Amino acid sequence: MSRIDGRTHDQLRPVTIERGWSKHAEGSVLVAFGDTKVLCTASVTEGVPRWRKGSGEGWVTAEYSMLPRSTNTRGDRESVRGRIGGRTHEISRLVGRSLRAVIDYKALGENTVVLDCDVLQADGGTRTAAITGAYVALADAVAWAQGKKIVKAGRKPLTGTVAAISVGIVDGTPLLDLCYAEDVRAETDMNVVCTGDGRFVEIQGTAEAEPFDRAELNSLLDLATAGCADLARIQNEVLAADLER
Amino acid sequence: MSRIDGRTHDQLRPVTIERGWSKHAEGSVLVAFGDTKVLCTASVTEGVPRWRKGSGEGWVTAEYSMLPRSTNTRGDRESVRGRIGGRTHEISRLVGRSLRAVIDYKALGENTVVLDCDVLQADGGTRTAAITGAYVALADAVAWAQGKKIVKAGRKPLTGTVAAISVGIVDGTPLLDLCYAEDVRAETDMNVVCTGDGRFVEIQGTAEAEPFDRAELNSLLDLATAGCADLARIQNEVLAADLER
Amino acid sequence: MSRIDGRTHDQLRPVTIERGWSKHAEGSVLVAFGDTKVLCTASVTEGVPRWRKGSGEGWVTAEYSMLPRSTNTRGDRESVRGRIGGRTHEISRLVGRSLRAVIDYKALGENTVVLDCDVLQADGGTRTAAITGAYVALADAVAWAQGKKIVKAGRKPLTGTVAAISVGIVDGTPLLDLCYAEDVRAETDMNVVCTGDGRFVEIQGTAEAEPFDRAELNSLLDLATAGCADLARIQNEVLAADLER
Amino acid sequence: MSRIDGRTHDQLRPVTIERGWSKHAEGSVLVAFGDTKVLCTASVTEGVPRWRKGSGEGWVTAEYSMLPRSTNTRGDRESVRGRIGGRTHEISRLVGRSLRAVIDYKALGENTVVLDCDVLQADGGTRTAAITGAYVALADAVAWAQGKKIVKAGRKPLTGTVAAISVGIVDGTPLLDLCYAEDVRAETDMNVVCTGDGRFVEIQGTAEAEPFDRAELNSLLDLATAGCADLARIQNEVLAADLER
Amino acid sequence: MSRIDGRTHDQLRPVTIERGWSKHAEGSVLVAFGDTKVLCTASVTEGVPRWRKGSGEGWVTAEYSMLPRSTNTRGDRESVRGRIGGRTHEISRLVGRSLRAVIDYKALGENTVVLDCDVLQADGGTRTAAITGAYVALADAVAWAQGKKIVKAGRKPLTGTVAAISVGIVDGTPLLDLCYAEDVRAETDMNVVCTGDGRFVEIQGTAEAEPFDRAELNSLLDLATAGCADLARIQNEVLAADLER
Amino acid sequence: MSRIDGRTHDQLRPVTIERGWSKHAEGSVLVAFGDTKVLCTASVTEGVPRWRKGSGEGWVTAEYSMLPRSTNTRGDRESVRGRIGGRTHEISRLVGRSLRAVIDYKALGENTVVLDCDVLQADGGTRTAAITGAYVALADAVAWAQGKKIVKAGRKPLTGTVAAISVGIVDGTPLLDLCYAEDVRAETDMNVVCTGDGRFVEIQGTAEAEPFDRAELNSLLDLATAGCADLARIQNEVLAADLER
Repeated sequence: MSRIDGRTHDQLRPVTIERGWSKHAEGSVLVAFGDTKVLCTASVTEGVPRWRKGSGEGWVTAEYSMLPRSTNTRGDRESVRGRIGGRTHEISRLVGRSLRAVIDYKALGENTVVLDCDVLQADGGTRTAAITGAYVALADAVAWAQGKKIVKAGRKPLTGTVAAISVGIVDGTPLLDLCYAEDVRAETDMNVVCTGDGRFVEIQGTAEAEPFDRAELNSLLDLATAGCADLARIQNEVLAADLER
Repeated sequence: MSRIDGRTHDQLRPVTIERGWSKHAEGSVLVAFGDTKVLCTASVTEGVPRWRKGSGEGWVTAEYSMLPRSTNTRGDRESVRGRIGGRTHEISRLVGRSLRAVIDYKALGENTVVLDCDVLQADGGTRTAAITGAYVALADAVAWAQGKKIVKAGRKPLTGTVAAISVGIVDGTPLLDLCYAEDVRAETDMNVVCTGDGRFVEIQGTAEAEPFDRAELNSLLDLATAGCADLARIQNEVLAADLER
Repeated sequence: MSRIDGRTHDQLRPVTIERGWSKHAEGSVLVAFGDTKVLCTASVTEGVPRWRKGSGEGWVTAEYSMLPRSTNTRGDRESVRGRIGGRTHEISRLVGRSLRAVIDYKALGENTVVLDCDVLQADGGTRTAAITGAYVALADAVAWAQGKKIVKAGRKPLTGTVAAISVGIVDGTPLLDLCYAEDVRAETDMNVVCTGDGRFVEIQGTAEAEPFDRAELNSLLDLATAGCADLARIQNEVLAADLER
Repeated sequence: MSRIDGRTHDQLRPVTIERGWSKHAEGSVLVAFGDTKVLCTASVTEGVPRWRKGSGEGWVTAEYSMLPRSTNTRGDRESVRGRIGGRTHEISRLVGRSLRAVIDYKALGENTVVLDCDVLQADGGTRTAAITGAYVALADAVAWAQGKKIVKAGRKPLTGTVAAISVGIVDGTPLLDLCYAEDVRAETDMNVVCTGDGRFVEIQGTAEAEPFDRAELNSLLDLATAGCADLARIQNEVLAADLER
Repeated sequence: MSRIDGRTHDQLRPVTIERGWSKHAEGSVLVAFGDTKVLCTASVTEGVPRWRKGSGEGWVTAEYSMLPRSTNTRGDRESVRGRIGGRTHEISRLVGRSLRAVIDYKALGENTVVLDCDVLQADGGTRTAAITGAYVALADAVAWAQGKKIVKAGRKPLTGTVAAISVGIVDGTPLLDLCYAEDVRAETDMNVVCTGDGRFVEIQGTAEAEPFDRAELNSLLDLATAGCADLARIQNEVLAADLER
Repeated sequence: MSRIDGRTHDQLRPVTIERGWSKHAEGSVLVAFGDTKVLCTASVTEGVPRWRKGSGEGWVTAEYSMLPRSTNTRGDRESVRGRIGGRTHEISRLVGRSLRAVIDYKALGENTVVLDCDVLQADGGTRTAAITGAYVALADAVAWAQGKKIVKAGRKPLTGTVAAISVGIVDGTPLLDLCYAEDVRAETDMNVVCTGDGRFVEIQGTAEAEPFDRAELNSLLDLATAGCADLARIQNEVLAADLER
């Protein structure tokens, strides 16, 4: 089967991660998975939420949002509606959990990093692009905080890398990194978050049409694990360059 | 290892499903997974949301909520705070998706079923108890609607059964159906929703502490699949009895 | 006149008060006035709201709510609508005032009791059942707090008992404890809250159709006073038993 | 006992009702009970809420609010807080019910009157002043609607008059029309709404400190009935004058 | 051209400013610009918002609101809608900025004045009447605070006076102080806030229909400057009288 | 005086307008005024708001928002706070009015264009960049709608061009196009919106410190008029190129 954009079933879309996108944020990237573009900023503040004060441990949290016209049809602004929708809540929580999986709170010290992932253009896989980009922004922010002596030297607040990819079954075939046109046709849709050493941080699989069996699940996990490994390599390459501030 | 309540690692808590709990709802059950008690009601209304009108197809949706003192420490009411929290949103969406997996919208016709899952007492596994109980309430509501000729005879709106169970790794051991005391100590936590024929509707696995590997994932899926099969059997037994209205 | 459920005009519906319903709350009862069922929990926390700190006095407050399908037709959840309705506000305030009428704030010390009254099934008289049940939950919670030495020994935080009942005029006849079918037909509807010694804590009478005169008011008050005395007796009997925790 | 402002126990404060206060509203009065001043406007619109369409019957509703500095200490605006408080809800509902008690919906036809009662200065008894003033505004609005042929001639939309007064027990003495300084010291506080022919529309009595007995209740009702009769007389005198528009 | 109410193009409507309108507020005026009537109260509280604590400087802020039936057609209450509209926000901010222009924060000390401007009847120019009246209420409140020694003697918290007026181009003619009937027909609408010495605090000009050129702008500014000078004179005359409290 | 970034007092920052930024929106530009970057999208929908239906006329509206970390310090998301702030409201309204000034509603027909202006990075002048960029997005969207025959041929929905610039007095010197560091020090701050033919659509001038006099106002208007003329030239140049879709 040939995919809508000519990719093979196990091929990522072109992935770009542009560091230092914002002059204000301590870490910031514009990440693209094909036509999906997400601006990820990492904001460092000294101190932690009240429930964590005095623990000596830091905190990392995330907020995900889509610009109203990031999609094909304009959506209402959640600020105008006065409430955040369930999908936004769900993804914000997922992004936060995913990044916290590679944080050593003690090493971070009583500092907070907020990751803002704002989707500028959506074409499927916005949450996985957000997690993948947010990791790079977080790494830059942590490095900045170490440079400023806000985070103590000699310890590594990041215990590894984290990336995420979507997989799904379309017309019976397992595919990696679905674009929107594929996503709407998928019978099963799964988002997988992996650490750089190939273990799972989060698996969320949903049968959109038919329930899926164990064999299909295994095919999807194989695809996703390989995809996340590719993303981890890209993250490492991007972070290897010096960041001009 | 002996569990806190003496169960083996692959043993469910005592499960009870009491049908016909409410005199008003078209379907209603009080489901208990050990000390977790959820009141599930299914409300049938003729007609569908505006975006579905004229399609000839029905709709099923769900709302999950916890009473403020269903937990060990009283939580604020979401109605008083004026907004629904992310966790509530997330679980409501999960319950709705899970039940829709076994619905034939055409056979349901332009009717809507709303499943309300209100946690009266929480001790871990509230979302899985909610899904498992909601299926029974839904089955009773659909039968009611067929009896009232609201849903046409000769077609089966339910294409199968659906149940859910939690699994997790505690102190390195995979366990089935975690109670709260186990849940807070779990390194990995997974909720699995299966159809009665053993296929997956939803898998949500989260590394709470250490990321998990493929072998651990497989152990958890084995446990969950067996647990869901047990629940399906209980659902069928319970539904085999006549419901006095 | 024979009533819809065969009662005499001055007869309560069957009243049951099941103590210790919840394993988490310091006090909890499931109260039933016929088919009206309300879960009342009393949550004790040390400390008082900010405006009361340092006074040496405690506080008691209440929140009332109906499950969406506690009624014949499903109502929207107030948490989903994002605001509490006027009726809910009004009844929450009434329940709180009623319970505070029998509290000695000094004897309670700087502790707070929150009474949550959640209507699981509604058939008229939900607010009166809530008050009557909440008193028992409150008594258990106070006893618990005394057992834990949170409330000092030697003083009695409860100065008496409190119960409530509805009365109304239906087809010209004053009736006690209206069920829903009677309530919707009532020309005048009154809720009366009494202490165990027969005095009034609150009287709320409303002419739903025709205004009522002094004679009618007197008949209603006579009925209500007798009904509250019956409820006080039931409360005392129920509380006389040991509560297994 | 001599009262704080020299009145006898059964004496109203000076009551003034200034009709035609607003050039926009179909009916409007500035009502004063002593230093309590409430602006009541009645707005007529053709048509009724959706749930009443096609019934041939009209609707009357009310909204009560206090200006932030109508009280001794400035209160937050409910519009700024984003939600209406319980007290506001409760009083708005009371005012609406009270006015509806003297409306013949059929004679009103499918028209709606909204009564806005905005407290400009508060000194106790704001809800009773609001009801008493709103009746006069309503009467003017109904007359306007009849003049405009919006309401059909030959039928009387108003079946009587309605007024309200507060009573309370202060230092053991029943008093009529409590000012704020008396209200805060009252052991029992009661608001009574009467029709012009002396029957009750609403009675709301609350024990603020000690519960009250039947004899005290009777004294309060006697005072209130006489006070409402005085107010009905004042309403009629005021309405007897021509209103210049 | 003769104006709708017979004024010349550069003539204010009758302006009245009634001081001491409220018995509670530290400063209060009922200001009228023709049929536009705004109740302005100034509330003094010791202390400042958190972000200003310890600065030794005070704060002045304002809230503007319209009663629902202050206009020809009843508007929804913002408290009922649960959110403040853009226009309300905008005018509240304008009033606050305007008054702060004449405040010496150091001389005010760590005290806060809140100006509430509630429109009782609207006929165009509500924001300019609000600013003009609020200044007088503020002056009385500051004098009160000095009398009470809350504000230290020997310094002048008010550095001058401030007033505001609307101007606009109607049928090609620049007009001063537009009433509502003129305002809706204006091609250009401008609000100008001036200090008593004739300098500008705020200029907000909007082309409602055709863009306006520099010459038109200059005509409007000439009119507004003269109008504000008249208002400053009226403010000073009104404040010259003793205020009986 | 030399400015912080070396510009002369009457010099714009580098202005870039990148058309066709989004693949979804009918018109979209990324506009930069120096380090201020705003993503402006124009969304066309057939139909108009209810109050305008049947008029044959179109509608244009705008929403402005800042990403939380577009500024030096992270701000709370308005969607999370659940309400839009006054500043956001005010600027959204300003952008909408400004664009409507160059729309011929009849020529647009019953179509709606929503302009979303999302600030990706802020360094002063975000509202003026938003207006200037939104005009170009609007022009592209209108051209698209004409190409699709949604807007009828033969009429020009745009009656001219519109652009905006900020001016201010810093240390006594009038400056064009203030960056953030200048803006916070400005004694007077003014935003001016001009049509391409040099007339005013909107003037908003505010004395941040000292009130300003007529001479200062005139200097600022001179600067702004020239600045807007430059921006109009840039807009025209940018729009002269073909847009590849």
